[in-house]
Amino acid sequence: MKVGIIGVTGYSGSELARLLLRHPEAKLVAVTGRSAAGKRVPEAIPYLWDLDLPITESIEESVDIVFSALSSGASAVALAPMVEKGVKAVDIAADFRIHDAAGFKRAYKVDHPAPHLLPRAVYGLSEIHRAAIKRTSLVANPGCYPEAAILALAPAVREGIVGDHFIVDGKSGISGAGRGGLTTNTIDLYAEANENVMAYGLDGHGHQPEIAQELAELREAPSAKVTFVPHRIPMTRGILATCYAPLVDGGITKKKVRELYREFYDGEPFVRVPELPPQTKHTLGTNYCLVYPTVDEQTGTLVVVSCLDNLIKGAAGQAIQNMNLMFGLPETTGLQGLALYP
Amino acid sequence: MKVGIIGVTGYSGSELARLLLRHPEAKLVAVTGRSAAGKRVPEAIPYLWDLDLPITESIEESVDIVFSALSSGASAVALAPMVEKGVKAVDIAADFRIHDAAGFKRAYKVDHPAPHLLPRAVYGLSEIHRAAIKRTSLVANPGCYPEAAILALAPAVREGIVGDHFIVDGKSGISGAGRGGLTTNTIDLYAEANENVMAYGLDGHGHQPEIAQELAELREAPSAKVTFVPHRIPMTRGILATCYAPLVDGGITKKKVRELYREFYDGEPFVRVPELPPQTKHTLGTNYCLVYPTVDEQTGTLVVVSCLDNLIKGAAGQAIQNMNLMFGLPETTGLQGLALYP
Amino acid sequence: MKVGIIGVTGYSGSELARLLLRHPEAKLVAVTGRSAAGKRVPEAIPYLWDLDLPITESIEESVDIVFSALSSGASAVALAPMVEKGVKAVDIAADFRIHDAAGFKRAYKVDHPAPHLLPRAVYGLSEIHRAAIKRTSLVANPGCYPEAAILALAPAVREGIVGDHFIVDGKSGISGAGRGGLTTNTIDLYAEANENVMAYGLDGHGHQPEIAQELAELREAPSAKVTFVPHRIPMTRGILATCYAPLVDGGITKKKVRELYREFYDGEPFVRVPELPPQTKHTLGTNYCLVYPTVDEQTGTLVVVSCLDNLIKGAAGQAIQNMNLMFGLPETTGLQGLALYP
Amino acid sequence: MKVGIIGVTGYSGSELARLLLRHPEAKLVAVTGRSAAGKRVPEAIPYLWDLDLPITESIEESVDIVFSALSSGASAVALAPMVEKGVKAVDIAADFRIHDAAGFKRAYKVDHPAPHLLPRAVYGLSEIHRAAIKRTSLVANPGCYPEAAILALAPAVREGIVGDHFIVDGKSGISGAGRGGLTTNTIDLYAEANENVMAYGLDGHGHQPEIAQELAELREAPSAKVTFVPHRIPMTRGILATCYAPLVDGGITKKKVRELYREFYDGEPFVRVPELPPQTKHTLGTNYCLVYPTVDEQTGTLVVVSCLDNLIKGAAGQAIQNMNLMFGLPETTGLQGLALYP
Repeated sequence: MKVGIIGVTGYSGSELARLLLRHPEAKLVAVTGRSAAGKRVPEAIPYLWDLDLPITESIEESVDIVFSALSSGASAVALAPMVEKGVKAVDIAADFRIHDAAGFKRAYKVDHPAPHLLPRAVYGLSEIHRAAIKRTSLVANPGCYPEAAILALAPAVREGIVGDHFIVDGKSGISGAGRGGLTTNTIDLYAEANENVMAYGLDGHGHQPEIAQELAELREAPSAKVTFVPHRIPMTRGILATCYAPLVDGGITKKKVRELYREFYDGEPFVRVPELPPQTKHTLGTNYCLVYPTVDEQTGTLVVVSCLDNLIKGAAGQAIQNMNLMFGLPETTGLQGLALYP
Repeated sequence: MKVGIIGVTGYSGSELARLLLRHPEAKLVAVTGRSAAGKRVPEAIPYLWDLDLPITESIEESVDIVFSALSSGASAVALAPMVEKGVKAVDIAADFRIHDAAGFKRAYKVDHPAPHLLPRAVYGLSEIHRAAIKRTSLVANPGCYPEAAILALAPAVREGIVGDHFIVDGKSGISGAGRGGLTTNTIDLYAEANENVMAYGLDGHGHQPEIAQELAELREAPSAKVTFVPHRIPMTRGILATCYAPLVDGGITKKKVRELYREFYDGEPFVRVPELPPQTKHTLGTNYCLVYPTVDEQTGTLVVVSCLDNLIKGAAGQAIQNMNLMFGLPETTGLQGLALYP
Repeated sequence: MKVGIIGVTGYSGSELARLLLRHPEAKLVAVTGRSAAGKRVPEAIPYLWDLDLPITESIEESVDIVFSALSSGASAVALAPMVEKGVKAVDIAADFRIHDAAGFKRAYKVDHPAPHLLPRAVYGLSEIHRAAIKRTSLVANPGCYPEAAILALAPAVREGIVGDHFIVDGKSGISGAGRGGLTTNTIDLYAEANENVMAYGLDGHGHQPEIAQELAELREAPSAKVTFVPHRIPMTRGILATCYAPLVDGGITKKKVRELYREFYDGEPFVRVPELPPQTKHTLGTNYCLVYPTVDEQTGTLVVVSCLDNLIKGAAGQAIQNMNLMFGLPETTGLQGLALYP
Repeated sequence: MKVGIIGVTGYSGSELARLLLRHPEAKLVAVTGRSAAGKRVPEAIPYLWDLDLPITESIEESVDIVFSALSSGASAVALAPMVEKGVKAVDIAADFRIHDAAGFKRAYKVDHPAPHLLPRAVYGLSEIHRAAIKRTSLVANPGCYPEAAILALAPAVREGIVGDHFIVDGKSGISGAGRGGLTTNTIDLYAEANENVMAYGLDGHGHQPEIAQELAELREAPSAKVTFVPHRIPMTRGILATCYAPLVDGGITKKKVRELYREFYDGEPFVRVPELPPQTKHTLGTNYCLVYPTVDEQTGTLVVVSCLDNLIKGAAGQAIQNMNLMFGLPETTGLQGLALYP
């Protein structure tokens, strides 16, 4: 299986390269990167000393599948001609996540560059859309926050035990900001991000409509009410989402909810419902998502805590899980890393 | 003003000592500490090289005011005889925060050691109970999370713009766990706390009833519904609370809410309503609390983000602010440090 | 290949378990741990959810090889009977590193519990003692600092380009302190280790004689003069050693030294001589050691910077590399992880 | 005393502003900053909400003293006209540290913009050049590493107990890189600096000639041999320097060396010789430098560990200490902060 990566030098792109180098069925044959074009990979990404490929401006090799880790807008532009030629594609950017072009524009403030491809795109949350992912050639890889939030809430929503107001309080490591924030924002600098927590996106974050779209679909309703507040946390990797929703029946027990979640995710290779509240470090370097539901009995509120590694299950690992599905491989192929703890 | 500290070697106790050493009207004359009793202060707390006092087992000097930074339960036992002798006292532990002994037992699972003193105790959130603090001789210093949460919600509750379900999603630096966690829990070790976020207290945290009690009082209602989920964040100091409550009138604008908050805190020396979402680092080393309200218009939800330094405004600084009030000093005396940024 | 781990709950022990779980030729069949005895592994080490073994007090299964990750002194006691029965053993503690019992006592202040086994032990630095490791049944896995320091200096010493005074300035992440420091030292707590650097072991550290022994052997001299100062760095994993030695010929060029190092490590699977000064993060989660030599021309000093992951190449990974050698497996088996960056 | 700051938005400049705001004898009247010119201070530096001054392009107010925190080269250009008009000046950049213009060019690769002022500049290490600082109107504030290294070595050098080869292994928090690194180097980003240690400046760092110049002067010799290797440490603030030098008399005891250091620094308000190895966190937020000498008896090597807050004693605090001297104020005025620990 010949694989290309568009945008290999960003955090998601280099993580894809790292994982694909050890994937037994994939062979990286082409990688692109604007500022680093002309260099060999190890010159731009020193710890990938074994990946001796040139970084080019565009994918020139023939590939069976291409991943794009460009920023939103640019990604669809780069992918469109390849998708049209029949190359399978997984977009790690946001360009194909929102089903309609108008919604995309509301979320990202730009016109969609390839609206004709939107109907072909499948939202790449493997646990929810597995069958469709297997059939499609264009996967929209989920955002990191939506991945955590939707996996946290899906069982409750599908089972109908919660009403329609979801509060998602997200906490993300700084790698979520990407390498691109560099030129504009001193808050990404170590000296300022360290020993510092802040909320952001309080006037609207692009991941909110994505979460709302998927929860609406799970509810089989036209919409879902989602309050989403992301936070920057002084750590490199990891997302923890704490999700709140009103229980329809306040008398439902923690035990019952736990069982319902366990059943929902029974057999899933990468989602676990642990006995104890999960820690992001228990997912560091892995493709796992941990989902821990509980009940605030005093107020009749479902509380679900979920966590994952934002660059793996929240980006590159999820993308490879989707690739495995698209090619009929065992879903866990190349994704068997265990947590780097401590 | 002669001052004593019971429990000087913990994080709150040593922070009190640090601040009091530079307080122009206070003179530390006695400090206690169990394991370190018999040492001089600089042997146990090396950076307080100027505080050449012996650490004793109990306060033997005559003092005008005593602070207790012991753990819950032990604190009331140590304070009771001094309070009964007429010494002014500020309890940094939780022993006098909950007004009734039954509520204390529900929250902390032990019988209250001095229930007869509960009626004399004033909840020491200066911005809310200033007049009563000035008159009392026993102040219950607020918990660090409640300090952040109540200051975040008080204006909205007092003005009646929100309904009765408050979600408080708290994020605290690890110093909040104190030094005492040492013997029982490896999660406080650097190697395990670093690069790690987790929720805790999901089956009930002692700060929940404290928040509920104060919000109920602000609402002039017998109770308040509070869902409280604290989280551990890999930083040393700082608390950020993200608070959610349903707006009675979903049409109220962000601007209007901001004005209402500005008016509520007008003239307060230590609470600010900033233009931009606050960062914990903007309060590091200070006695300030930053409170930033906004509105999620799609769902009609009030969102308030507040932050403070958990060892200063959330503990030792708040205690000194209360001492200043109790002795008729300008409220900011000895508390004028600015943020250590970056 | 049936494998046992003595002391699975410490940081090195759990890292061994993590790596062995994905080793294609090894099967973990028995693990011990004092305080956790009686539990299943996932109860004590939650992220190893797939390792459903009981934790016992001693190895009761028949095993082909046993690793001990106990503390010094205890380790030899536990290993001795197994070694005597013919089980292959890798000791991750310090008990078999110093060749003579008197030297061990000087370094660790206790009598050696099994001096009769010392002659059988081989110092397990694969790159230096590969042939002997293949033949032995008892390997003394190197300390983490010595691993970095000896790999940094070996080429220069073997080639005779430096005189006899080696300064090793070591910088280690806090996981190097282990989990056992917990009960005695608040400096291992996150709140105190974070934003904090300090030197320690200034009156003598157990790794100094280990470094001196190996450098003496490389020099084919009875001794070597080594000044070793370790430092605690606020990160979880990683060691960086900056080593200084006087050049015999001050005129030797950086280029020449670099070539000499490249030749020395030519073909080594886990040691690399990079183009640019190495970063610990380039080795995070891997079994690599990066070695970067340069010359301070003004003073005629060789400066070598080396780095590695202290729990992998500095402990568990090196132990598995030794196991691979002892069983005739390809040396890289089960050790092919790439750096988790960022 | 009317004070101006050139370059207020960088880390040293904003730290100066923070300290001067609480200095009882100084009044900030003018601050400059290129990119932020036109804003009020709190718009650019939110936590300095009380400093309601405009940020201008150049100092237009009349001032008694000006601090420059610009980058090297630019600083002398901005200061020259003011110095020539008779305004007292403290340069926090490197422009007046090296006594001769040729040495400056070798160190910083640019021509000196105002070589005629070099003879008037005094190297602003208060503990060494106090008398000259009191008399001058132009102070060259030391670099952060040199501050730590020279204070560590001065007693030994002045007393003649060490030979002429000094190895300075410096460890600095990331704030030392300044805010300006932003546009060129992803290594300053949190995601890459965190959990990462590296050496840098291995082909020559501008602070090496500064250290050598001052040690030569202390030796009353034309030169000093200094090997200087700086390292980046994942913390925001703090420098720790571990310094090595050969003892002339290898038999000198630790105790004797300690006494010699204690005498040398007797009466110094900001240098302490502690009983135990110092921690950077014991100086966080303070103007103190801790200096801990010891002896490696096996090799006859003096080892001195020193530490300080790189933005205070290593920059802004040292600059204010110099200002106090220049104006005949008590040296500790405005600099009495104690360590923020934990």
